[in-house]
Amino acid sequence: MTTETSRIGDAGTDAGLFSPVRVGTAVEAVVSEVAFVRGMLDAEAALARVQERLGVVPEGAGEAVTRLCGGVSVDVWALARGARDAGNPVVPLLDALRAVGGDEAVHLHRGATSQDIVDTALMLMAARAKEIILADLTRVLDALAGVADAHRSTPMPGRTLGKHAVPITFGLKAAGWLLLVRDARDALRHTILPAQLGGAAGTMAGLGPATLIDAYAGELGLASPVTPWHTRRTPVATLGAALATTTGALGKIAGDVVLMAQDEIGELAEPPAPGRGGSSAMPHKRNPVLSVLITSAAQQVPALAQILQASLTAAHERPTGTWHAEWLPLRECLRLTGGAARTAAELCEGLEIAPERMDANLRITGHLTGGLGASEDLVARALEEYRASPP
Amino acid sequence: MTTETSRIGDAGTDAGLFSPVRVGTAVEAVVSEVAFVRGMLDAEAALARVQERLGVVPEGAGEAVTRLCGGVSVDVWALARGARDAGNPVVPLLDALRAVGGDEAVHLHRGATSQDIVDTALMLMAARAKEIILADLTRVLDALAGVADAHRSTPMPGRTLGKHAVPITFGLKAAGWLLLVRDARDALRHTILPAQLGGAAGTMAGLGPATLIDAYAGELGLASPVTPWHTRRTPVATLGAALATTTGALGKIAGDVVLMAQDEIGELAEPPAPGRGGSSAMPHKRNPVLSVLITSAAQQVPALAQILQASLTAAHERPTGTWHAEWLPLRECLRLTGGAARTAAELCEGLEIAPERMDANLRITGHLTGGLGASEDLVARALEEYRASPP
Amino acid sequence: MTTETSRIGDAGTDAGLFSPVRVGTAVEAVVSEVAFVRGMLDAEAALARVQERLGVVPEGAGEAVTRLCGGVSVDVWALARGARDAGNPVVPLLDALRAVGGDEAVHLHRGATSQDIVDTALMLMAARAKEIILADLTRVLDALAGVADAHRSTPMPGRTLGKHAVPITFGLKAAGWLLLVRDARDALRHTILPAQLGGAAGTMAGLGPATLIDAYAGELGLASPVTPWHTRRTPVATLGAALATTTGALGKIAGDVVLMAQDEIGELAEPPAPGRGGSSAMPHKRNPVLSVLITSAAQQVPALAQILQASLTAAHERPTGTWHAEWLPLRECLRLTGGAARTAAELCEGLEIAPERMDANLRITGHLTGGLGASEDLVARALEEYRASPP
Amino acid sequence: MTTETSRIGDAGTDAGLFSPVRVGTAVEAVVSEVAFVRGMLDAEAALARVQERLGVVPEGAGEAVTRLCGGVSVDVWALARGARDAGNPVVPLLDALRAVGGDEAVHLHRGATSQDIVDTALMLMAARAKEIILADLTRVLDALAGVADAHRSTPMPGRTLGKHAVPITFGLKAAGWLLLVRDARDALRHTILPAQLGGAAGTMAGLGPATLIDAYAGELGLASPVTPWHTRRTPVATLGAALATTTGALGKIAGDVVLMAQDEIGELAEPPAPGRGGSSAMPHKRNPVLSVLITSAAQQVPALAQILQASLTAAHERPTGTWHAEWLPLRECLRLTGGAARTAAELCEGLEIAPERMDANLRITGHLTGGLGASEDLVARALEEYRASPP
Repeated sequence: MTTETSRIGDAGTDAGLFSPVRVGTAVEAVVSEVAFVRGMLDAEAALARVQERLGVVPEGAGEAVTRLCGGVSVDVWALARGARDAGNPVVPLLDALRAVGGDEAVHLHRGATSQDIVDTALMLMAARAKEIILADLTRVLDALAGVADAHRSTPMPGRTLGKHAVPITFGLKAAGWLLLVRDARDALRHTILPAQLGGAAGTMAGLGPATLIDAYAGELGLASPVTPWHTRRTPVATLGAALATTTGALGKIAGDVVLMAQDEIGELAEPPAPGRGGSSAMPHKRNPVLSVLITSAAQQVPALAQILQASLTAAHERPTGTWHAEWLPLRECLRLTGGAARTAAELCEGLEIAPERMDANLRITGHLTGGLGASEDLVARALEEYRASPP
Repeated sequence: MTTETSRIGDAGTDAGLFSPVRVGTAVEAVVSEVAFVRGMLDAEAALARVQERLGVVPEGAGEAVTRLCGGVSVDVWALARGARDAGNPVVPLLDALRAVGGDEAVHLHRGATSQDIVDTALMLMAARAKEIILADLTRVLDALAGVADAHRSTPMPGRTLGKHAVPITFGLKAAGWLLLVRDARDALRHTILPAQLGGAAGTMAGLGPATLIDAYAGELGLASPVTPWHTRRTPVATLGAALATTTGALGKIAGDVVLMAQDEIGELAEPPAPGRGGSSAMPHKRNPVLSVLITSAAQQVPALAQILQASLTAAHERPTGTWHAEWLPLRECLRLTGGAARTAAELCEGLEIAPERMDANLRITGHLTGGLGASEDLVARALEEYRASPP
Repeated sequence: MTTETSRIGDAGTDAGLFSPVRVGTAVEAVVSEVAFVRGMLDAEAALARVQERLGVVPEGAGEAVTRLCGGVSVDVWALARGARDAGNPVVPLLDALRAVGGDEAVHLHRGATSQDIVDTALMLMAARAKEIILADLTRVLDALAGVADAHRSTPMPGRTLGKHAVPITFGLKAAGWLLLVRDARDALRHTILPAQLGGAAGTMAGLGPATLIDAYAGELGLASPVTPWHTRRTPVATLGAALATTTGALGKIAGDVVLMAQDEIGELAEPPAPGRGGSSAMPHKRNPVLSVLITSAAQQVPALAQILQASLTAAHERPTGTWHAEWLPLRECLRLTGGAARTAAELCEGLEIAPERMDANLRITGHLTGGLGASEDLVARALEEYRASPP
Repeated sequence: MTTETSRIGDAGTDAGLFSPVRVGTAVEAVVSEVAFVRGMLDAEAALARVQERLGVVPEGAGEAVTRLCGGVSVDVWALARGARDAGNPVVPLLDALRAVGGDEAVHLHRGATSQDIVDTALMLMAARAKEIILADLTRVLDALAGVADAHRSTPMPGRTLGKHAVPITFGLKAAGWLLLVRDARDALRHTILPAQLGGAAGTMAGLGPATLIDAYAGELGLASPVTPWHTRRTPVATLGAALATTTGALGKIAGDVVLMAQDEIGELAEPPAPGRGGSSAMPHKRNPVLSVLITSAAQQVPALAQILQASLTAAHERPTGTWHAEWLPLRECLRLTGGAARTAAELCEGLEIAPERMDANLRITGHLTGGLGASEDLVARALEEYRASPP
C-alpha cells in the first residue's frame, strides 16, 4: 500500500501540538490513520487467504486479494470523506479496491461486514501499541527495581495528607511505584485482543464454517473470539481500563516526582537534557516537564476509557453510535499511554536523587532517621515479589 | 456490636428512594454504614489476634480486643461527626472503644493507622458484595444458557445501526449476552481484594514483622498484598472497572429487552409481577421496569468507577483527598451493581419470548427465515465455550 | 407529614460515614429522603390548589389535598420497596395517600404523571440546597476579599509547573481564588430550576390549560418551564455543571492550601479546632483535613455531573433509564457541593498565614521581593471587579 | 505564515478516519494544528502592537513583529518535537521566529509567558468554532420550528419508558427538540472567551500596565478577563459544559430519529443522499447514518468535557499537568460538536416524515387520535417562546 498525501493541505496534520506527551514516541506510528488503513487491508487479505484455505473461495483468490491489498494506493482524505457518508471507512475502501482491482477484487470481503474489518484493524493497532507499551513498562520496572534496591535504606520523610508522618526509606517509595507499575503491566498484558469476524449481523452466514474465525485470528496473530463480538465489547472496555490503570500508575510516580522536586523540598530532579523544561519567560528555570507530560496523560485516559466502558451497552447486532464513539477514544488511550510509558522510562532511568535533602527535610519535623528496618524488610518483600513474577 | 439508631431523626435514612435498582436486594446489608463499622471492628480484632500470635502483644490481648469490638455499642451519627473532624471514622471509633474498653483497649490498634482499618473494612464489604453479585450472575448465566439453547433455531431480524440486517436466531442473541456476562463475571471473579496493613506511613514499623500482613489477611479471609497499598490503589481501581464491566454487560441485555418490548415490535416482555411496571397516570400500562432499573445502574457505574481510576495518582504515602474520594463511589458501585445483578436475574429467568412476533417482524423487510445454520453453529460454540469455563 | 422510622433497622442509616465532607452541614437536611418525600407531597398539594384556582377541580379540593399531604404519615422504607416495583416512588406514595385519604384524595394527582412529581420534588430540593450553597459561597468570597486586600503586598514565590517562577503577592493568589469562586457562584446563581408538569406524555392533556404550568410553578416558587421538560433535561445538566464548577473552584483553593501547608513550605495552616486533623497513629500530627475533605468532593462531582450531562439524550417522552440515573448523582452533587462550600467557608475564614515563611521561601531561589506593583494593581482590579458584581 | 508539510510522511495525517462525524465540516479548519499556530502568531503580533500603543515597546515594534509573524514559515513537526522538550509549543515557536527575525524579533513576546500565547490561541480557535456552531444551530432551530409548526396537529404515539403512553403530536416532539437546542445555543452563546495575558507568574510584571490586558483582548476580538486566568479555568470548563450540552441536545434528536426510523415503526427517515448510509455487506440497506454520527459525538463530549471540569483544580500559578491535559479534549469537544451541529442541520432540514405510519402505530395500542388540543397549545407556547428569544 502506498498513500497519497499531496492533498493534505494545511488542515490535516496530526503532529501532536495538542498532545506533546506522545510526540516522537514509537506508539504514534502504529496508531496512525495510515496504520489503521494498513490494518484494514491486512484484515481483508487474511480473510481471503483463510477462506481459500477452507475452500470458501477458489484457489489463488487469497494471493490475488493479498496482492491487491498490498499494492493499492489509498487516499486517506477520500477515505475519510467516504466514511462520513457510509458511517465507516470500509465501504469507500472497498470501492477503491474494486475500482483498481479487476479480477483480483472478485473474492474480496466475501461474507464480511464493515465492522469485521474496522474492529480487526483496531485490534491490530492495539496489539502493536501494547507491545511497545509493555516494553517501555519493562524499562520503567527495571529502573525502579534498581532505585528501590539502591535506596532501600535511604531515609526520607513519609508524608501523609500532605504532612510529614514517620520516616520511610526512599527505596520503600520506589518499591511502591514498582509494584504499582507491575500491577498495571499485568493488567495490560492480560488483555485479550481478538480478531473480529461475523458478517452482516454477526452470524457468519456466507463467510464459511464457524471455525473460520479461529483460522482468521491465527493468520493475523490475534486471539480467536469464539464467536463474533460486534456487540460484546469487553475486549475494548477491558483494554481501556488497563490503559487507564497504566497511566494512573505512571501518573502517581510523576505526581510524587513533582512534589519532591519543589524548590523547598529538592529531593528529586528530572534527568536534564538540552532544551528540556525551558520557559519562554524565565530562560534558566528547569521545569519537571517529563512528569508534567505524564500527568497530562493520566488526567485524560480515565475519562476516555470511560467512554469505552459506557459503550458496552451496544444495542442489538451493531449499535447506533456507541461503536463509532469508540474509535477516537481507543486510539487516544493507546497513544497517550504509549507516550506516557516512554516518557516514564526516560524519567525513571534518569532520576536525580538527593539523599542529603531527604535527610535535611526529615530534621524539619525533628525525626531521627533510625529504625528503618521495617521499611527495608518491605523493600525486600517487594523486590522478591517483583522478581518472582514472569518478566 | 450493637448500634444506636434512636437519634436518626428524619434526615438520615438511606432506604433507596434515589436508587430503586438496589432496594431490598441482598447487597444493601453488606455495604451499609453499619456493615462498614462492623468491618472496621473486625479489622481491629483480627489485628490484635494475629499480633498476639506473633508475640507483638501479650497473651490474651487478642481475645480482649475481640471481646471489646464484639460487644461495643456504636453510634454511627457520632462516628460520622467525628469522621468530619478527623478526616476518617477510625479516630472517633478508637475513642469510643477506649472510653468503654478499659484494660481491654490497651493493645488495640497497635502500630496501625486509620487507613489500615478503613481500607480493610472496605475490602471486607467488597468481598461480601462480590460473592452476592457472582451468585446473581450465575443465575443470569444459567438462565441465558437455557434461553440460548431453547431458541438456537428461532429466527428473528438481526438489527444493525437500528435497521434490519440479515436474520439471526434469538438463541444467537442470547448466546452473545451469555458470553458478555461471562466476561464480566470472570473480570469480577479475578479481582483481588487485599487486606490493608502498614501503619502510619506504610512501613509496618511498630506493627510487627513483615509477615504479619500475611497472617492478618489470612485471618480476615482477604488476599495478602505483600506490602501495604496505601497509595497503590490498583485493587480499588480494578474492582471498579470490573463492576463497570458488569453493569455494562447487564445494561446491554436490558437495552435490547427495552427495544424488543416496544409495542410495535413485541418480541419480548418482562416477567410480570403484581405492582410491577405500573404508571401513576395510566394504570394499565406495563413498563419494562426491570430493564429501566438495570439501565439506570449501567448509566452511573462507569462514571463512578472512573473516580476510582483517577484516584490511582494518590500522592506520597497517603493522598490529600483522592483516598477520601473513593469511599462513596466504591460503595455505590458495589450497591448499584449488586442491584443490577439481582434485577437481571429476575429479568432473565422470567423473560417472555414471542417467536411469532420475531417471525412477523422478519417479514416486514421480506426476509425468509431459512439458512440459519450458521447462527446455530455459533450458538453451539458459545454454549460449549461457556460450559468449558469454570462454574 | 410525619415519617415512620421505627423499621429502619441497622441497614439503612445515611449518617455520612462514606462522605465526611458533608456531615452535619445544612445541606444534608434539605436533600434527605424525607425532604424528597416532603417535596413530592408539596408538589401534589400545589397542583390541587392551582387546579382549583383554574377550575379544573372543584372548590375545596385544593385545601383537601393540601390537608391530606400535610398530615399523612409516610413510611420511607415501604415507599422505596414500592418504588422498585413501580420504577419510581410516586405510585406507592399515591397508594398510601389514597389508602388514608378517602374523599380528600379524590382530586389528588389529577392529570399528572409520576415524573411531574419527582422532578418537581428534585427541583425543590435543589432550590433549597442552592440557597444554602450560595450563602456559604458568600462567606468564602467575603473572607477571600479580606485576605486579598490585607495581603495585596505580601511577597511570596509564584510557582509554575511546580517550581518557583517570579514573585507574586499572596493577595494576588487570593484574588485569583476570589474571582474563581465568583465565577462559580455566578454560574450557580444563574441556574434555572423549573417546576415540572406535563401529564402522561408531557401533553398536559387532562391537567388543565397550558397556563396551569405557570401558576403551578409560581405556587411552588420555582421557574416556569414554558412547556414540560420530561426529556428536555437542560435544567438538570446545567445545574450539575454549575455544581462541578463550584467544587472545582473550591478544590483549587484547597489544593493550594495543601501545597502551602507542607512542612517544608509552611506558608499557610488551616484553622485549628479541637479534634480536627488528628491521626490515629500520630496523635500530635495536624492534617489539613478541611482541604482534604473539600478535595474529596472536587474529585467526585465532575464525574457525577457527567452522568447528568449524558442523560440529556433522554429518549422519546420519558427515557428508559437515563432519568432514573439522574436522581442519585444529582442528590450527591448537591450534598457534596454543599459540604464543600460550608467546609471552604470554615477554611477561608480561619486561614493562618505566615508571611515570614513566604519571604524565606522566596530567598531559596534568590528572588528579591521588590517590584510587586504589578501584582498589587491586579489585586485592585480584581477587588473592584468583585465589588462591582451583584452581591 | 506558511507551513511546511513536505515532511509529513505517512504517520501524521488527521483526515478524520477515527471520527467521521466531523469530516469535511467547516469546524475542522479552524481547530487544526495550523490554525493553532496561526492563533499563537496572532497573539504575539497583537501583544506587540498594543505594547507599542501603550509605550511599552518602541514605535514600529508592533508592525515589525506583525510582519515577522505574518511571513514566517513554520514547520509544525519541528514545533511538536520542541513542544515535547519544552512542555509547550511556544518555546520552539519563539526560537523559530528569533532565528529568522533579526531585528524584527527584538520586541517579540515582551514580558509574556507561554501560557499567555497558548491560551489566547485556544480561545481564538474556540471563538471561530463557536461562530460556526452557532450558525449551524440556527439552521437546526429554523428547521425544527418549521417542523413543529407544520406538524403541530399530526398525531403519533407518545412513548414513555419504551412503551406507548397517550398520543402526542409530532409537532410537540419537534417543539421539545427546538427548546432543547435553544437551551444549548443559549448556553454556548453566553460562554465568555477571554484573551490570556499575565507573564511568568500571572502578575503582568514586565508586560505593561494592568490595562494592557483590556487593549490586548480588544485587539484580538476576545473578552477581557480583568486579571490573568492561568489557574482560573472557568472559561475552559464552562465552554466544555456548553459543548456537552449541545451534543447532548443534538444526541437526543438523533436518538429519537433512530428509534422512529426502525423498520417496524417507520415514522421518520433520514434525508437520502448518494452513497449515504450504505452497507458493505448489504448494498441496499439504508442506515440512519447522520443520527449515528451525531450520537457518536454525544457519547464522547460529556467525558471529554469532564476532563476540562476536573482541570479547574489547577495548582498554584500554573499547574503540573492539568493545563496540558486541556488542549486535546478542548479541541476534540469543539470539533466533535462542530461536526454534530453541521450533521444535525443536514438531518433536521431533510427529515422525511410519515404521518400515516404515526397514525398506524397509534392504532396498535387502540388509541384514538382526537383530543390533541393540549399538545397543540404547547406547540404554540414553545414557538412563541422560541420566537421571543434573541435570534
